[in-house]
Amino acid sequence: MREALAADAVLELFATADAIERHPELTADAAEISEKDAAALSETVTPQGLVAVCRLPRPTLADVAESSPRLLAVLVEPNDPGNAGTIIRTADAAGADAVVLDGGVDAFNGKAVRASAGSVFHLPIVEGPAADVCALRGVTTLAATGSGARSIDELAADGTLSGPTAWLFGSEAHGLPADVLARADHAVRVPIYGRAESLNLAAAAAICLYASARAQRGRS
Amino acid sequence: MREALAADAVLELFATADAIERHPELTADAAEISEKDAAALSETVTPQGLVAVCRLPRPTLADVAESSPRLLAVLVEPNDPGNAGTIIRTADAAGADAVVLDGGVDAFNGKAVRASAGSVFHLPIVEGPAADVCALRGVTTLAATGSGARSIDELAADGTLSGPTAWLFGSEAHGLPADVLARADHAVRVPIYGRAESLNLAAAAAICLYASARAQRGRS
Repeated sequence: MREALAADAVLELFATADAIERHPELTADAAEISEKDAAALSETVTPQGLVAVCRLPRPTLADVAESSPRLLAVLVEPNDPGNAGTIIRTADAAGADAVVLDGGVDAFNGKAVRASAGSVFHLPIVEGPAADVCALRGVTTLAATGSGARSIDELAADGTLSGPTAWLFGSEAHGLPADVLARADHAVRVPIYGRAESLNLAAAAAICLYASARAQRGRS
Repeated sequence: MREALAADAVLELFATADAIERHPELTADAAEISEKDAAALSETVTPQGLVAVCRLPRPTLADVAESSPRLLAVLVEPNDPGNAGTIIRTADAAGADAVVLDGGVDAFNGKAVRASAGSVFHLPIVEGPAADVCALRGVTTLAATGSGARSIDELAADGTLSGPTAWLFGSEAHGLPADVLARADHAVRVPIYGRAESLNLAAAAAICLYASARAQRGRS
């Protein structure tokens, strides 16, 4: 809520008497509602007594392209709002310029917003096809896939990660669609040193996004 | 189930007629049970029709210490079985020698086992105090904390991550206890480049464990 207010995204705010007492700094402009109404409006099992109607910031990929982005995270048909929110949080932490969602869950789904810990309000969340990201000039597109021909360590060593980069992530269940894999500049794997068959999607995304962040700051 | 059988951890296996038909390769030694009994025995909402009684592999920290470990993940009072299982899966993928649990959730909790994608059967899962890990000779202990004085990139650059290392992770809610922070050789932060206040625990653990895996293989 604090993040949504800071981002000037809140159109209307409703709060219970209890929430107004607990958070006077947030609720100066709130309309008071009953506990029952707050529970009915809220999606969570233990509502906080604060419900906001928010304006969804919806920049386009063209807006993002104009800003000469250096790091993008692209989620292709993400099917788990918790994973999507966690990756948005990690992209924010890694200093990404935007997150692009191609289908799948809505980043402003309540569960995704909570998993993002407010990061959906920190960086542009764009809806659009991964193919349009692959068509951006000057941005190397890296498809994260367990079967990638290139290891992420090779790409860090050869300087690929130091330039403007968009990472493409598929869903936990299905990975990236074949047409997206075909369009990307490289199919990239995180090496598996032990006996696990694969990494959890959000864990793999954290390793990829931070490898880029480090390389772009000359610390690879 | 496949992982548990491969690890020779299954003492008794029960399967529905349907599961026996679908998975003949797994159910040669299974006792047939009804769908109703399978549902009653299973924890999940949509049971697979296969229920096993498993022997829990429980090596001690002394066993692990004897094997001259190079990479350990230590979870101190983890409170989310999904996060714990995901970190065990990542530790396995990063080639860790063992995972140590100091309190908190049980790694063999059904939800943790599923989040680990079988990794709880791939590497030793040890129960014991983090203080004992900090007392191991020749192992540098790194406490992962957002307020750490050292950045993980510094430790990669100065060679610290190239030696035998144990990473200590606290709970998502409370972080690491003060006494564990005090015993560790370094308090280490993953740098935040954007506006996120922190990383999700499993994402931070993935970045830390893979930084060590890369450094130990001469790819830092």
